[in-house]
Amino acid sequence: MVSKELRADLQLKWQRIQQAMQMVNADGCLLSVDVNLFYTTGQIFSGYFYLPSQGEPCFFVKRPNGITGSNVEYIRKPEQIPALLAEKGINQPNKLLLEADELSYNDYIRLQQLFNPKETGNATTLMRNVRMVKTPWEISQFRISAKGHAATYAEIPSCYRPGITDLEFQYEIENKMRRQGSIGIFRAFGANMDIHMGSILAGDNAEAPSPFDFALGGQGMDPSCPLGANGTILKEGTSVMVDMAGNYSAYLTDMTRVYAIGKLPELAYKAHQVSLTIQHEIENMARPGTPCADLYNLAFQMAEREGLADYFMGTKQQAKFVGHGIGLQINELPVLTPRSKELLEENMTFALEPKFVIPGTGAVGVENSYLVTNNAVEKLTLFEENIIQL
Amino acid sequence: MVSKELRADLQLKWQRIQQAMQMVNADGCLLSVDVNLFYTTGQIFSGYFYLPSQGEPCFFVKRPNGITGSNVEYIRKPEQIPALLAEKGINQPNKLLLEADELSYNDYIRLQQLFNPKETGNATTLMRNVRMVKTPWEISQFRISAKGHAATYAEIPSCYRPGITDLEFQYEIENKMRRQGSIGIFRAFGANMDIHMGSILAGDNAEAPSPFDFALGGQGMDPSCPLGANGTILKEGTSVMVDMAGNYSAYLTDMTRVYAIGKLPELAYKAHQVSLTIQHEIENMARPGTPCADLYNLAFQMAEREGLADYFMGTKQQAKFVGHGIGLQINELPVLTPRSKELLEENMTFALEPKFVIPGTGAVGVENSYLVTNNAVEKLTLFEENIIQL
Repeated sequence: MVSKELRADLQLKWQRIQQAMQMVNADGCLLSVDVNLFYTTGQIFSGYFYLPSQGEPCFFVKRPNGITGSNVEYIRKPEQIPALLAEKGINQPNKLLLEADELSYNDYIRLQQLFNPKETGNATTLMRNVRMVKTPWEISQFRISAKGHAATYAEIPSCYRPGITDLEFQYEIENKMRRQGSIGIFRAFGANMDIHMGSILAGDNAEAPSPFDFALGGQGMDPSCPLGANGTILKEGTSVMVDMAGNYSAYLTDMTRVYAIGKLPELAYKAHQVSLTIQHEIENMARPGTPCADLYNLAFQMAEREGLADYFMGTKQQAKFVGHGIGLQINELPVLTPRSKELLEENMTFALEPKFVIPGTGAVGVENSYLVTNNAVEKLTLFEENIIQL
Repeated sequence: MVSKELRADLQLKWQRIQQAMQMVNADGCLLSVDVNLFYTTGQIFSGYFYLPSQGEPCFFVKRPNGITGSNVEYIRKPEQIPALLAEKGINQPNKLLLEADELSYNDYIRLQQLFNPKETGNATTLMRNVRMVKTPWEISQFRISAKGHAATYAEIPSCYRPGITDLEFQYEIENKMRRQGSIGIFRAFGANMDIHMGSILAGDNAEAPSPFDFALGGQGMDPSCPLGANGTILKEGTSVMVDMAGNYSAYLTDMTRVYAIGKLPELAYKAHQVSLTIQHEIENMARPGTPCADLYNLAFQMAEREGLADYFMGTKQQAKFVGHGIGLQINELPVLTPRSKELLEENMTFALEPKFVIPGTGAVGVENSYLVTNNAVEKLTLFEENIIQL
């Protein structure tokens, strides 16, 4: 189905999933959600990926026609799977993992009934944990996204014309993104987390609280898409926070930069500098073994010490995290939140986004994507971090 | 929460849902999926909409801050809902409807346990059926989308330069869409149905089968997004089918036009003409009471009679429908498929898309969006339908 290099990486992923399954005494997992299919097979199809806790996986494909490879079986409906597994000498699972946080209730019940296992466990939890530590191929894909992301941001000043709105600015940036190879689709974990290519927040729209679990909100251009730019005119003294997707491969980098229309008030520059200092301190602290909660607490304490706590991660509604895992979805594990019990591990990837919202001006701060190395972190998204005047 | 005009329309929707609930002896429905929230409240928020089978609805909001109105209650978690309903004198439902095809298994189980009804029914089925017949405000929103859709398509020739790829062509069309007011997000019903702003199919990429339940496929630009344009160079003798989203309001129009690079083979023009004739015959046949299956059968028989059955709705994989309902999602009910048991009703809206794929040339045909009137159908998407030479 895939290239030799990717195949080796898929086998590494299968091994990790099998180890995780053995830890919870699961006999097999059946996956069909887009990101889990891509993770385990290198592509998205209509069908199922079945991995027993030992041995080779099977690919049950409904569509498209024409997929070939060992253990690829075409099916019309999932009810055919148990007999096909039996033909291959694979035992029916006593404990089966299904994607309980992603499959619809009806799809889950249908799969549970046809396998009728003694016990069912949550493949969403297991897969989100396994996917937290990235493989070599995945890391190479982040580097592709980071490069495209920085190349696009370098073109942002050319998208500005005096008197335009945040939306008009965004449309031109989206066009630059696509020409740089953005895939367009921007995947997030969780219900209703729809977002179109990213977010641009100008002026007081940065204060508008979000219904979703993103760091900042914005009213959006329509009540059916209540996030991001809302038609604010980019006028003198406004900060424009650009947080557009890094989807130049299937693996998402996350990166925010701030642009200024003319001169901003001193408080905005001060808060931006505090963001950079928080980033610097967290870069120094973060390494394998660092508790994610400590990273949030450090950031919050620094904001508080500077008298900026009321502006930290929003005003009317404040996000209680300063960063999050990245991958096939923009909000993977771990989360840099005070309640996190996770420790950083080598080959985790995360975005760090200390941000402030200054009433009357807009949002300031910085966001970058990082790879946890064997003794530190490596910044993946390399681009000018000061406020850039348009 | 919303304008007076929209409020009257929401009340009409609530009445229709209540009537449908009474038909299945349901006492209440709890909705939280994006399109159902928008349908019933005019906005999307993090939280729940509860409608008893008689009386006023309640709005349980987690986020964002600041929503006001009668029966708006802020909650931290859904477990607070039953007590709040009791305070308002609303009985616990004996039969509760939950979105069984849309909620995750875990979310569904959580809601079911906290209400603990004697019986649970499927709100997805009920809502998809209610949403099938549109209200006056919804119809006004389709007209906005249809206008933006046609205005964008008029700009398509200016997006073409000799020697560009289908993707480069698409990026410029996307930019025109956004400048015309496209909201960007393109919602579909069903798992993994991700699509970025629409599909452009040039040359033999139109033959690539899709993993999804769309009419045609295309390889896509990346295995993580296996649909649509794939980098095919737009060369002489290639047809380019443009099927980009009509998301100029929350209500989606669907519209396809074909552009030609130079001259196409005669078979392509013939098949395109057959598409237009099929459309014409279906327009004449369709009215309240027409079985949707008859519309598919008419289209297929006409394709067969012209000797074009092997090219109808694809080649390597052929879609078994010729149209579908449209609304907040691109694939609403009814479906124009031979297995459909639906009859057209006044104020349904649907897309009709008789298409052919000609090997070596690409896809041809037409797609328009229609409103079912009291005795006929009205075409909403008005724009030149012949093949347009670039």
